[in-house]
Amino acid sequence: MLLGFPEYAPQAAALAAATSRDCAIVDVHRFPDGESRLRLPPALPADVVLCRSLDHPNDKLVELLIAAAAARELGAERVTLVAPYLCYMRQDMAFTPGEAVSQRIVGRMLAERFDRVVTVDPHLHRVSDLGEAIPSGDPLALSAAALIARFLQAQLRAPLIVGPDSESEQWVAAIADAAGFDGVTCTKTRTGDREVAIELPSCDMTGRDVVLVDDVASTGHTLVRAAEQCRARGAARVDVAVTHGLFVGEAIDVLRRAGIGNVWSTDSVTHATNAIPLAGLLATALAPAG
Amino acid sequence: MLLGFPEYAPQAAALAAATSRDCAIVDVHRFPDGESRLRLPPALPADVVLCRSLDHPNDKLVELLIAAAAARELGAERVTLVAPYLCYMRQDMAFTPGEAVSQRIVGRMLAERFDRVVTVDPHLHRVSDLGEAIPSGDPLALSAAALIARFLQAQLRAPLIVGPDSESEQWVAAIADAAGFDGVTCTKTRTGDREVAIELPSCDMTGRDVVLVDDVASTGHTLVRAAEQCRARGAARVDVAVTHGLFVGEAIDVLRRAGIGNVWSTDSVTHATNAIPLAGLLATALAPAG
Repeated sequence: MLLGFPEYAPQAAALAAATSRDCAIVDVHRFPDGESRLRLPPALPADVVLCRSLDHPNDKLVELLIAAAAARELGAERVTLVAPYLCYMRQDMAFTPGEAVSQRIVGRMLAERFDRVVTVDPHLHRVSDLGEAIPSGDPLALSAAALIARFLQAQLRAPLIVGPDSESEQWVAAIADAAGFDGVTCTKTRTGDREVAIELPSCDMTGRDVVLVDDVASTGHTLVRAAEQCRARGAARVDVAVTHGLFVGEAIDVLRRAGIGNVWSTDSVTHATNAIPLAGLLATALAPAG
Repeated sequence: MLLGFPEYAPQAAALAAATSRDCAIVDVHRFPDGESRLRLPPALPADVVLCRSLDHPNDKLVELLIAAAAARELGAERVTLVAPYLCYMRQDMAFTPGEAVSQRIVGRMLAERFDRVVTVDPHLHRVSDLGEAIPSGDPLALSAAALIARFLQAQLRAPLIVGPDSESEQWVAAIADAAGFDGVTCTKTRTGDREVAIELPSCDMTGRDVVLVDDVASTGHTLVRAAEQCRARGAARVDVAVTHGLFVGEAIDVLRRAGIGNVWSTDSVTHATNAIPLAGLLATALAPAG
Protein backbone atom coordinates (compact mmCIF):
# COMPACT_ATOMS: atom_id res chain seq x y z
CA MET A 1 0.00 0.00 0.00
CA LEU A 2 1.11 3.55 -0.73
CA LEU A 3 0.19 6.35 1.70
CA GLY A 4 0.16 9.92 0.48
CA PHE A 5 -0.47 13.22 2.24
CA PRO A 6 -3.09 15.85 1.41
CA GLU A 7 -0.80 18.36 -0.34
CA TYR A 8 0.75 15.54 -2.36
CA ALA A 9 -2.28 13.38 -3.14
CA PRO A 10 -2.18 13.48 -6.99
CA GLN A 11 1.49 12.47 -7.11
CA ALA A 12 0.87 9.68 -4.58
CA ALA A 13 -2.07 8.39 -6.61
CA ALA A 14 0.01 8.43 -9.81
CA LEU A 15 2.87 6.53 -8.17
CA ALA A 16 0.46 4.01 -6.65
CA ALA A 17 -1.09 3.43 -10.10
CA ALA A 18 2.34 3.06 -11.73
CA THR A 19 3.32 0.38 -9.19
CA SER A 20 -0.08 -1.36 -8.92
CA ARG A 21 -0.46 -0.41 -5.27
CA ASP A 22 -3.55 0.62 -3.34
CA CYS A 23 -3.39 4.30 -2.40
CA ALA A 24 -4.71 6.01 0.72
CA ILE A 25 -4.23 9.59 1.86
CA VAL A 26 -3.21 10.10 5.49
CA ASP A 27 -5.83 12.26 7.19
CA VAL A 28 -3.99 15.27 8.66
CA HIS A 29 -5.72 17.65 11.08
CA ARG A 30 -3.86 20.64 12.49
CA PHE A 31 -5.23 21.64 15.89
CA PRO A 32 -5.47 25.33 16.80
CA ASP A 33 -2.43 24.89 19.08
CA GLY A 34 -0.24 23.79 16.17
CA GLU A 35 -0.19 20.07 16.89
CA SER A 36 -1.05 17.62 14.11
CA ARG A 37 -3.39 14.66 14.35
CA LEU A 38 -2.74 11.87 11.84
CA ARG A 39 -5.08 9.06 10.88
CA LEU A 40 -3.89 6.14 8.74
CA PRO A 41 -5.86 3.20 7.40
CA PRO A 42 -6.47 1.09 10.53
CA ALA A 43 -4.95 -2.12 9.15
CA LEU A 44 -1.82 -1.99 7.00
CA PRO A 45 -0.06 -4.66 4.96
CA ALA A 46 3.56 -5.60 5.67
CA ASP A 47 4.90 -3.45 2.82
CA VAL A 48 4.03 0.26 3.10
CA VAL A 49 5.35 3.20 1.07
CA LEU A 50 4.98 6.73 2.45
CA CYS A 51 5.11 9.36 -0.29
CA ARG A 52 5.67 13.03 0.57
CA SER A 53 8.11 15.74 -0.48
CA LEU A 54 9.74 17.67 2.34
CA ASP A 55 9.64 21.27 1.14
CA HIS A 56 8.87 23.72 3.99
CA PRO A 57 9.81 20.72 6.00
CA ASN A 58 9.35 21.07 9.75
CA ASP A 59 5.60 20.37 10.01
CA LYS A 60 5.85 17.73 7.30
CA LEU A 61 8.89 16.07 8.86
CA VAL A 62 7.27 15.74 12.30
CA GLU A 63 4.12 14.34 10.70
CA LEU A 64 6.14 11.95 8.57
CA LEU A 65 8.13 10.60 11.52
CA ILE A 66 4.90 10.13 13.49
CA ALA A 67 3.23 8.46 10.49
CA ALA A 68 6.15 6.04 10.02
CA ALA A 69 5.98 4.94 13.66
CA ALA A 70 2.19 4.69 13.53
CA ALA A 71 2.39 2.61 10.34
CA ARG A 72 4.51 0.02 12.15
CA GLU A 73 2.06 -0.04 15.06
CA LEU A 74 -0.71 -0.69 12.53
CA GLY A 75 1.00 -3.69 10.95
CA ALA A 76 3.65 -2.43 8.51
CA GLU A 77 6.92 -4.35 8.66
CA ARG A 78 8.82 -2.62 5.88
CA VAL A 79 8.30 1.13 5.51
CA THR A 80 9.78 2.94 2.51
CA LEU A 81 9.90 6.70 2.14
CA VAL A 82 9.56 8.20 -1.32
CA ALA A 83 10.43 11.87 -0.84
CA PRO A 84 11.16 13.34 -4.26
CA TYR A 85 12.35 16.52 -2.51
CA LEU A 86 14.43 15.81 0.58
CA CYS A 87 14.92 18.52 3.19
CA TYR A 88 18.05 19.80 4.93
CA MET A 89 20.38 18.53 2.20
CA ARG A 90 22.11 21.91 1.85
CA GLN A 91 23.42 22.15 5.44
CA ASP A 92 26.13 19.55 4.81
CA MET A 93 28.88 21.19 6.89
CA ALA A 94 29.34 23.72 9.69
CA PHE A 95 29.85 26.91 7.69
CA THR A 96 30.75 28.65 10.96
CA PRO A 97 31.86 26.89 14.18
CA GLY A 98 28.98 25.45 16.19
CA GLU A 99 26.52 25.15 13.30
CA ALA A 100 24.45 21.99 13.34
CA VAL A 101 25.17 19.80 10.31
CA SER A 102 21.48 19.22 9.70
CA GLN A 103 21.98 17.06 6.60
CA ARG A 104 23.64 14.37 8.69
CA ILE A 105 21.29 14.75 11.68
CA VAL A 106 18.04 14.73 9.69
CA GLY A 107 19.46 11.97 7.49
CA ARG A 108 19.95 9.83 10.59
CA MET A 109 16.38 10.55 11.76
CA LEU A 110 15.06 9.26 8.42
CA ALA A 111 17.45 6.29 8.45
CA GLU A 112 16.16 5.26 11.89
CA ARG A 113 12.51 5.39 10.86
CA PHE A 114 12.51 4.09 7.29
CA ASP A 115 13.81 0.86 5.82
CA ARG A 116 14.62 2.68 2.60
CA VAL A 117 14.59 6.27 1.35
CA VAL A 118 14.08 7.10 -2.34
CA THR A 119 14.56 10.67 -3.58
CA VAL A 120 15.27 12.64 -6.74
CA ASP A 121 18.23 14.94 -7.38
CA PRO A 122 19.17 15.56 -3.73
CA HIS A 123 21.35 18.62 -3.25
CA LEU A 124 24.60 16.78 -2.59
CA HIS A 125 27.52 19.13 -2.88
CA ARG A 126 30.41 18.41 -0.55
CA VAL A 127 28.87 15.01 0.21
CA SER A 128 29.03 12.88 -2.92
CA ASP A 129 26.86 9.95 -1.95
CA LEU A 130 23.35 9.90 -0.44
CA GLY A 131 24.48 7.05 1.81
CA GLU A 132 26.69 9.54 3.66
CA ALA A 133 23.64 11.67 4.46
CA ILE A 134 21.23 8.78 5.15
CA PRO A 135 23.36 6.07 6.71
CA SER A 136 21.16 3.00 6.31
CA GLY A 137 18.85 1.07 4.03
CA ASP A 138 20.72 1.66 0.75
CA PRO A 139 19.04 5.01 0.00
CA LEU A 140 18.45 5.73 -3.67
CA ALA A 141 18.98 9.06 -5.44
CA LEU A 142 17.25 9.07 -8.81
CA SER A 143 17.87 11.85 -11.33
CA ALA A 144 15.26 13.77 -13.30
CA ALA A 145 17.90 14.93 -15.80
CA ALA A 146 16.86 12.51 -18.55
CA LEU A 147 13.18 13.46 -18.10
CA ILE A 148 14.02 17.16 -18.26
CA ALA A 149 16.23 16.59 -21.33
CA ARG A 150 13.41 14.78 -23.13
CA PHE A 151 10.93 17.49 -22.15
CA LEU A 152 13.21 20.26 -23.47
CA GLN A 153 13.76 18.38 -26.73
CA ALA A 154 10.00 18.55 -27.27
CA GLN A 155 9.87 22.28 -26.48
CA LEU A 156 12.93 23.87 -28.10
CA ARG A 157 15.43 23.40 -30.95
CA ALA A 158 19.07 23.25 -29.83
CA PRO A 159 18.88 25.49 -26.76
CA LEU A 160 21.97 26.40 -24.75
CA ILE A 161 21.78 24.83 -21.29
CA VAL A 162 23.17 27.19 -18.62
CA GLY A 163 23.82 26.37 -14.97
CA PRO A 164 23.81 29.40 -12.64
CA ASP A 165 26.59 28.15 -10.37
CA SER A 166 29.22 25.46 -10.03
CA GLU A 167 26.89 23.28 -7.94
CA SER A 168 24.57 23.02 -10.96
CA GLU A 169 27.35 21.73 -13.22
CA GLN A 170 26.27 18.12 -12.77
CA TRP A 171 22.67 18.89 -13.92
CA VAL A 172 23.92 20.91 -16.89
CA ALA A 173 26.17 18.06 -18.00
CA ALA A 174 23.50 15.38 -17.50
CA ILE A 175 20.76 17.30 -19.34
CA ALA A 176 22.99 18.59 -22.15
CA ASP A 177 24.53 15.15 -22.71
CA ALA A 178 21.19 13.35 -22.66
CA ALA A 179 19.65 15.75 -25.19
CA GLY A 180 22.71 16.56 -27.29
CA PHE A 181 22.57 20.26 -26.34
CA ASP A 182 25.43 22.69 -25.59
CA GLY A 183 25.96 23.45 -21.90
CA VAL A 184 27.91 25.99 -19.81
CA THR A 185 28.08 26.81 -16.09
CA CYS A 186 28.40 30.16 -14.29
CA THR A 187 30.15 30.87 -11.00
CA LYS A 188 28.15 32.33 -8.10
CA THR A 189 29.03 34.30 -4.98
CA ARG A 190 26.33 34.37 -2.28
CA THR A 191 26.20 37.39 0.03
CA GLY A 192 22.87 36.70 1.80
CA ASP A 193 19.66 34.65 1.64
CA ARG A 194 18.48 36.70 -1.33
CA GLU A 195 21.68 38.33 -2.68
CA VAL A 196 23.98 36.63 -5.14
CA ALA A 197 26.51 37.67 -7.78
CA ILE A 198 26.82 35.57 -10.95
CA GLU A 199 29.65 35.43 -13.45
CA LEU A 200 29.14 33.86 -16.90
CA PRO A 201 31.86 31.91 -18.65
CA SER A 202 33.05 33.39 -21.93
CA CYS A 203 30.73 32.05 -24.60
CA ASP A 204 28.66 33.53 -27.40
CA MET A 205 24.93 33.58 -26.61
CA THR A 206 23.86 35.86 -29.47
CA GLY A 207 20.41 34.85 -30.66
CA ARG A 208 20.43 31.63 -28.63
CA ASP A 209 17.51 30.13 -26.74
CA VAL A 210 18.89 29.70 -23.24
CA VAL A 211 17.47 27.31 -20.64
CA LEU A 212 18.68 27.86 -17.09
CA VAL A 213 18.69 24.55 -15.22
CA ASP A 214 19.21 23.69 -11.58
CA ASP A 215 18.24 21.05 -9.06
CA VAL A 216 16.29 23.42 -6.83
CA ALA A 217 14.92 26.97 -7.15
CA SER A 218 13.94 28.76 -3.94
CA THR A 219 13.70 32.57 -3.98
CA GLY A 220 14.64 32.67 -7.69
CA HIS A 221 17.31 35.32 -7.15
CA THR A 222 20.13 33.14 -8.47
CA LEU A 223 18.14 32.45 -11.65
CA VAL A 224 17.35 36.17 -12.10
CA ARG A 225 21.01 37.18 -11.88
CA ALA A 226 21.93 34.44 -14.36
CA ALA A 227 19.12 35.47 -16.73
CA GLU A 228 20.30 39.11 -16.67
CA GLN A 229 23.80 38.00 -17.62
CA CYS A 230 22.52 35.80 -20.46
CA ARG A 231 20.40 38.59 -21.92
CA ALA A 232 23.36 40.97 -21.66
CA ARG A 233 25.28 38.46 -23.74
CA GLY A 234 22.61 38.55 -26.43
CA ALA A 235 20.43 35.53 -25.58
CA ALA A 236 17.18 35.65 -27.61
CA ARG A 237 15.10 34.17 -24.80
CA VAL A 238 15.64 32.63 -21.38
CA ASP A 239 13.52 29.80 -19.96
CA VAL A 240 13.98 27.89 -16.70
CA ALA A 241 13.76 24.15 -15.94
CA VAL A 242 14.35 22.78 -12.45
CA THR A 243 13.76 19.49 -10.69
CA HIS A 244 12.46 21.04 -7.47
CA GLY A 245 10.46 24.26 -7.80
CA LEU A 246 10.12 25.61 -4.26
CA PHE A 247 9.54 29.16 -5.57
CA VAL A 248 9.04 30.70 -2.12
CA GLY A 249 7.21 34.02 -1.63
CA GLU A 250 7.33 36.26 -4.72
CA ALA A 251 9.77 34.02 -6.59
CA ILE A 252 7.63 33.56 -9.72
CA ASP A 253 6.89 37.29 -9.98
CA VAL A 254 10.60 37.98 -9.58
CA LEU A 255 11.35 35.60 -12.47
CA ARG A 256 8.65 37.14 -14.69
CA ARG A 257 9.86 40.67 -14.04
CA ALA A 258 13.34 39.57 -15.07
CA GLY A 259 11.94 38.64 -18.48
CA ILE A 260 12.18 34.89 -18.03
CA GLY A 261 9.73 33.16 -20.36
CA ASN A 262 8.69 29.64 -19.42
CA VAL A 263 9.32 28.19 -15.97
CA TRP A 264 9.10 24.41 -15.87
CA SER A 265 9.48 22.07 -12.91
CA THR A 266 8.89 18.41 -12.16
CA ASP A 267 6.00 17.59 -9.85
CA SER A 268 8.47 16.88 -7.04
CA VAL A 269 6.96 19.86 -5.18
CA THR A 270 3.36 20.76 -6.00
CA HIS A 271 3.43 24.07 -7.92
CA ALA A 272 1.73 25.78 -10.87
CA THR A 273 4.93 25.33 -12.91
CA ASN A 274 4.80 21.50 -12.69
CA ALA A 275 5.22 20.19 -16.24
CA ILE A 276 7.23 16.98 -15.84
CA PRO A 277 5.65 14.14 -13.84
CA LEU A 278 8.00 11.92 -11.84
CA ALA A 279 5.75 8.89 -11.27
CA GLY A 280 7.32 6.80 -14.04
CA LEU A 281 10.84 7.47 -12.77
CA LEU A 282 9.91 6.83 -9.12
CA ALA A 283 8.13 3.61 -10.08
CA THR A 284 11.43 2.14 -11.32
CA ALA A 285 12.70 2.29 -7.73
CA LEU A 286 9.78 0.36 -6.21
CA ALA A 287 9.22 -3.32 -6.72
CA PRO A 288 5.65 -4.11 -7.84
CA ALA A 289 3.39 -4.58 -4.81
CA GLY A 290 3.54 -8.14 -3.47
CA MET B 1 25.84 24.95 30.45
CA LEU B 2 22.22 25.77 29.74
CA LEU B 3 21.13 26.49 26.16
CA GLY B 4 17.99 28.47 25.53
CA PHE B 5 16.16 29.42 22.34
CA PRO B 6 15.24 32.92 21.15
CA GLU B 7 11.54 32.86 22.09
CA TYR B 8 12.41 31.47 25.52
CA ALA B 9 15.56 33.41 26.37
CA PRO B 10 14.41 35.13 29.61
CA GLN B 11 13.20 31.86 31.15
CA ALA B 12 16.43 30.12 30.12
CA ALA B 13 18.51 32.88 31.67
CA ALA B 14 16.50 32.71 34.92
CA LEU B 15 16.91 28.94 35.15
CA ALA B 16 20.64 29.19 34.40
CA ALA B 17 21.03 31.77 37.15
CA ALA B 18 19.04 29.65 39.62
CA THR B 19 21.32 26.66 38.97
CA SER B 20 24.62 28.56 38.64
CA ARG B 21 25.03 27.56 34.99
CA ASP B 22 26.39 29.54 32.07
CA CYS B 23 23.62 30.42 29.63
CA ALA B 24 23.80 30.71 25.86
CA ILE B 25 20.98 31.18 23.36
CA VAL B 26 20.98 28.92 20.32
CA ASP B 27 21.13 31.06 17.18
CA VAL B 28 18.12 30.09 15.03
CA HIS B 29 17.80 31.28 11.44
CA ARG B 30 14.77 30.32 9.36
CA PHE B 31 15.62 30.23 5.66
CA PRO B 32 13.04 31.44 3.12
CA ASP B 33 12.35 27.79 2.18
CA GLY B 34 11.27 26.97 5.74
CA GLU B 35 14.40 25.14 6.85
CA SER B 36 16.09 26.14 10.12
CA ARG B 37 19.78 26.74 10.66
CA LEU B 38 20.99 26.31 14.25
CA ARG B 39 24.25 27.53 15.73
CA LEU B 40 25.36 26.42 19.20
CA PRO B 41 28.43 27.48 21.18
CA PRO B 42 31.28 25.71 19.34
CA ALA B 43 32.64 23.87 22.38
CA LEU B 44 30.28 22.42 24.96
CA PRO B 45 30.91 20.90 28.40
CA ALA B 46 29.90 17.32 29.21
CA ASP B 47 26.69 18.39 30.96
CA VAL B 48 24.28 20.39 28.79
CA VAL B 49 20.69 21.43 29.51
CA LEU B 50 18.43 22.46 26.61
CA CYS B 51 15.53 24.63 27.76
CA ARG B 52 12.53 25.21 25.48
CA SER B 53 8.78 24.81 25.78
CA LEU B 54 7.09 22.96 22.92
CA ASP B 55 3.95 25.00 22.27
CA HIS B 56 3.18 25.26 18.52
CA PRO B 57 5.59 22.41 18.43
CA ASN B 58 6.55 21.20 14.98
CA ASP B 59 9.20 23.79 14.09
CA LYS B 60 10.47 23.81 17.68
CA LEU B 61 10.56 20.02 17.91
CA VAL B 62 12.60 19.60 14.72
CA GLU B 63 15.01 22.31 15.89
CA LEU B 64 15.26 20.75 19.33
CA LEU B 65 16.04 17.28 17.98
CA ILE B 66 18.67 18.78 15.67
CA ALA B 67 20.14 20.83 18.54
CA ALA B 68 20.36 17.78 20.82
CA ALA B 69 22.28 15.82 18.19
CA ALA B 70 24.51 18.81 17.42
CA ALA B 71 25.22 19.31 21.14
CA ARG B 72 26.61 15.77 21.36
CA GLU B 73 28.76 16.35 18.26
CA LEU B 74 30.11 19.50 19.98
CA GLY B 75 31.15 17.68 23.16
CA ALA B 76 28.07 17.17 25.34
CA GLU B 77 27.89 13.75 26.97
CA ARG B 78 24.73 14.19 29.02
CA VAL B 79 21.91 16.23 27.47
CA THR B 80 18.88 17.12 29.60
CA LEU B 81 15.71 18.65 28.20
CA VAL B 82 13.79 21.11 30.35
CA ALA B 83 10.51 21.62 28.47
CA PRO B 84 8.02 23.19 30.89
CA TYR B 85 5.31 22.66 28.26
CA LEU B 86 5.58 19.31 26.52
CA CYS B 87 3.84 18.76 23.18
CA TYR B 88 1.59 15.97 21.94
CA MET B 89 0.61 14.87 25.45
CA ARG B 90 -3.11 14.97 24.65
CA GLN B 91 -3.07 12.38 21.86
CA ASP B 92 -2.63 9.48 24.30
CA MET B 93 -4.86 6.97 22.50
CA ALA B 94 -6.38 6.29 19.08
CA PHE B 95 -9.74 8.05 19.46
CA THR B 96 -10.76 6.50 16.13
CA PRO B 97 -9.10 3.45 14.51
CA GLY B 98 -5.85 4.26 12.70
CA GLU B 99 -5.05 7.45 14.63
CA ALA B 100 -1.39 7.85 15.50
CA VAL B 101 -0.84 7.80 19.27
CA SER B 102 1.45 10.81 19.08
CA GLN B 103 2.08 11.00 22.83
CA ARG B 104 3.89 7.66 22.75
CA ILE B 105 5.65 8.31 19.42
CA VAL B 106 6.89 11.82 20.25
CA GLY B 107 7.77 10.62 23.76
CA ARG B 108 10.02 7.96 22.23
CA MET B 109 11.68 10.57 19.99
CA LEU B 110 12.54 12.64 23.06
CA ALA B 111 13.63 9.58 25.03
CA GLU B 112 16.06 8.64 22.24
CA ARG B 113 17.65 12.08 22.09
CA PHE B 114 17.76 13.20 25.73
CA ASP B 115 19.23 11.57 28.82
CA ARG B 116 16.49 13.12 30.90
CA VAL B 117 13.31 15.11 30.31
CA VAL B 118 11.93 17.53 32.91
CA THR B 119 8.51 19.10 32.45
CA VAL B 120 5.70 20.76 34.40
CA ASP B 121 2.09 19.57 34.66
CA PRO B 122 2.06 17.39 31.54
CA HIS B 123 -1.42 16.63 30.28
CA LEU B 124 -1.52 13.01 31.42
CA HIS B 125 -5.06 11.74 31.37
CA ARG B 126 -5.46 8.08 30.51
CA VAL B 127 -1.70 7.63 31.01
CA SER B 128 -0.92 8.11 34.68
CA ASP B 129 2.86 8.25 34.64
CA LEU B 130 5.19 10.36 32.46
CA GLY B 131 7.46 7.31 32.16
CA GLU B 132 4.77 5.65 30.03
CA ALA B 133 4.92 8.54 27.57
CA ILE B 134 8.71 9.04 27.67
CA PRO B 135 10.15 5.57 28.15
CA SER B 136 13.69 6.31 29.35
CA GLY B 137 15.84 8.46 31.57
CA ASP B 138 13.52 8.71 34.55
CA PRO B 139 11.54 11.69 33.20
CA LEU B 140 10.32 14.14 35.82
CA ALA B 141 6.90 15.81 35.93
CA LEU B 142 6.94 18.75 38.32
CA SER B 143 3.71 20.49 39.33
CA ALA B 144 3.07 24.21 39.44
CA ALA B 145 0.03 23.70 41.71
CA ALA B 146 1.80 24.87 44.89
CA LEU B 147 3.17 27.96 43.10
CA ILE B 148 -0.29 28.80 41.74
CA ALA B 149 -1.84 28.23 45.18
CA ARG B 150 0.66 30.59 46.81
CA PHE B 151 0.09 33.18 44.07
CA LEU B 152 -3.70 33.04 44.51
CA GLN B 153 -3.38 33.37 48.29
CA ALA B 154 -1.60 36.69 47.67
CA GLN B 155 -4.30 37.89 45.25
CA LEU B 156 -7.65 36.80 46.68
CA ARG B 157 -9.40 35.94 49.95
CA ALA B 158 -10.98 32.47 50.06
CA PRO B 159 -11.84 32.08 46.35
CA LEU B 160 -13.69 29.05 45.05
CA ILE B 161 -11.42 26.99 42.79
CA VAL B 162 -13.33 25.58 39.80
CA GLY B 163 -12.08 23.07 37.27
CA PRO B 164 -13.87 23.19 33.90
CA ASP B 165 -13.76 19.43 33.27
CA SER B 166 -12.97 16.13 34.92
CA GLU B 167 -9.40 16.19 33.55
CA SER B 168 -8.75 19.32 35.62
CA GLU B 169 -9.83 17.63 38.86
CA GLN B 170 -6.24 16.88 39.87
CA TRP B 171 -5.21 20.59 39.55
CA VAL B 172 -8.29 21.75 41.43
CA ALA B 173 -7.54 19.35 44.28
CA ALA B 174 -3.82 20.20 44.40
CA ILE B 175 -4.36 23.99 44.37
CA ALA B 176 -7.35 23.99 46.74
CA ASP B 177 -5.59 21.68 49.19
CA ALA B 178 -2.32 23.63 49.12
CA ALA B 179 -4.08 26.95 49.76
CA GLY B 180 -6.96 25.79 51.95
CA PHE B 181 -9.57 26.91 49.38
CA ASP B 182 -12.85 25.23 48.38
CA GLY B 183 -12.77 23.42 45.05
CA VAL B 184 -15.28 21.87 42.62
CA THR B 185 -15.05 20.35 39.14
CA CYS B 186 -17.41 20.57 36.16
CA THR B 187 -18.05 17.94 33.50
CA LYS B 188 -17.37 18.77 29.84
CA THR B 189 -18.60 17.40 26.52
CA ARG B 190 -16.48 18.35 23.48
CA THR B 191 -18.23 18.59 20.11
CA GLY B 192 -15.40 20.16 18.04
CA ASP B 193 -12.04 21.99 18.26
CA ARG B 194 -13.83 25.09 19.54
CA GLU B 195 -17.21 23.78 20.78
CA VAL B 196 -17.74 22.41 24.25
CA ALA B 197 -20.65 22.01 26.68
CA ILE B 198 -19.99 22.41 30.41
CA GLU B 199 -22.08 21.24 33.34
CA LEU B 200 -21.47 22.62 36.85
CA PRO B 201 -21.85 20.49 39.95
CA SER B 202 -24.56 21.61 42.35
CA CYS B 203 -22.94 24.19 44.62
CA ASP B 204 -23.73 27.71 45.74
CA MET B 205 -21.52 30.34 44.08
CA THR B 206 -23.54 33.38 45.17
CA GLY B 207 -21.16 36.28 45.73
CA ARG B 208 -18.08 34.10 45.51
CA ASP B 209 -14.78 34.99 43.85
CA VAL B 210 -14.25 32.10 41.42
CA VAL B 211 -10.90 31.10 39.96
CA LEU B 212 -11.05 28.73 37.01
CA VAL B 213 -7.91 26.59 36.97
CA ASP B 214 -6.54 24.14 34.42
CA ASP B 215 -3.23 22.74 33.27
CA VAL B 216 -3.48 24.19 29.76
CA ALA B 217 -5.65 26.81 28.04
CA SER B 218 -5.68 26.83 24.23
CA THR B 219 -8.62 28.50 22.45
CA GLY B 220 -10.19 29.50 25.79
CA HIS B 221 -13.61 28.15 24.79
CA THR B 222 -13.75 25.68 27.66
CA LEU B 223 -12.98 28.45 30.16
CA VAL B 224 -15.62 30.73 28.61
CA ARG B 225 -18.34 28.10 28.91
CA ALA B 226 -17.33 27.44 32.52
CA ALA B 227 -17.27 31.18 33.32
CA GLU B 228 -20.79 31.62 31.90
CA GLN B 229 -22.06 28.83 34.15
CA CYS B 230 -20.36 30.30 37.22
CA ARG B 231 -21.83 33.76 36.60
CA ALA B 232 -25.27 32.21 36.06
CA ARG B 233 -24.84 30.65 39.50
CA GLY B 234 -24.19 34.04 41.02
CA ALA B 235 -20.38 34.22 41.13
CA ALA B 236 -19.24 37.79 41.93
CA ARG B 237 -16.19 37.58 39.68
CA VAL B 238 -14.35 34.99 37.65
CA ASP B 239 -10.56 34.92 37.20
CA VAL B 240 -8.41 32.31 35.45
CA ALA B 241 -5.12 30.68 36.49
CA VAL B 242 -3.41 28.06 34.31
CA THR B 243 -0.01 26.45 34.19
CA HIS B 244 0.33 26.61 30.40
CA GLY B 245 -1.24 29.61 28.68
CA LEU B 246 -1.20 28.79 24.95
CA PHE B 247 -4.06 31.23 24.26
CA VAL B 248 -4.12 30.65 20.51
CA GLY B 249 -5.62 33.16 18.11
CA GLU B 250 -8.29 35.35 19.70
CA ALA B 251 -8.35 33.41 22.97
CA ILE B 252 -7.65 36.38 25.25
CA ASP B 253 -10.29 38.54 23.54
CA VAL B 254 -12.75 35.68 23.88
CA LEU B 255 -12.03 35.47 27.62
CA ARG B 256 -12.37 39.24 28.07
CA ARG B 257 -15.67 39.36 26.21
CA ALA B 258 -16.95 36.61 28.51
CA GLY B 259 -16.36 38.94 31.47
CA ILE B 260 -13.37 37.08 32.88
CA GLY B 261 -11.28 39.44 35.01
CA ASN B 262 -7.67 38.46 35.56
CA VAL B 263 -5.93 35.81 33.48
CA TRP B 264 -2.78 34.46 35.08
CA SER B 265 -0.31 31.89 33.76
CA THR B 266 3.11 30.59 34.67
CA ASP B 267 5.95 31.52 32.30
CA SER B 268 5.92 27.98 30.90
CA VAL B 269 4.86 29.49 27.56
CA THR B 270 5.87 33.09 26.90
CA HIS B 271 2.69 35.20 27.01
CA ALA B 272 1.47 38.59 28.28
CA THR B 273 -0.46 36.80 31.06
CA ASN B 274 2.72 35.31 32.61
CA ALA B 275 2.61 36.09 36.33
CA ILE B 276 4.18 33.05 37.99
CA PRO B 277 7.84 32.29 37.19
CA LEU B 278 8.87 28.63 37.14
CA ALA B 279 12.66 28.99 37.45
CA GLY B 280 12.75 28.19 41.18
CA LEU B 281 10.64 25.05 40.73
CA LEU B 282 12.61 23.88 37.69
CA ALA B 283 15.90 24.48 39.50
CA THR B 284 14.97 21.86 42.11
CA ALA B 285 15.11 19.24 39.33
CA LEU B 286 18.61 20.12 38.15
CA ALA B 287 21.74 19.36 40.13
CA PRO B 288 24.00 22.40 40.50
CA ALA B 289 26.40 22.65 37.55
CA GLY B 290 29.52 20.53 38.07
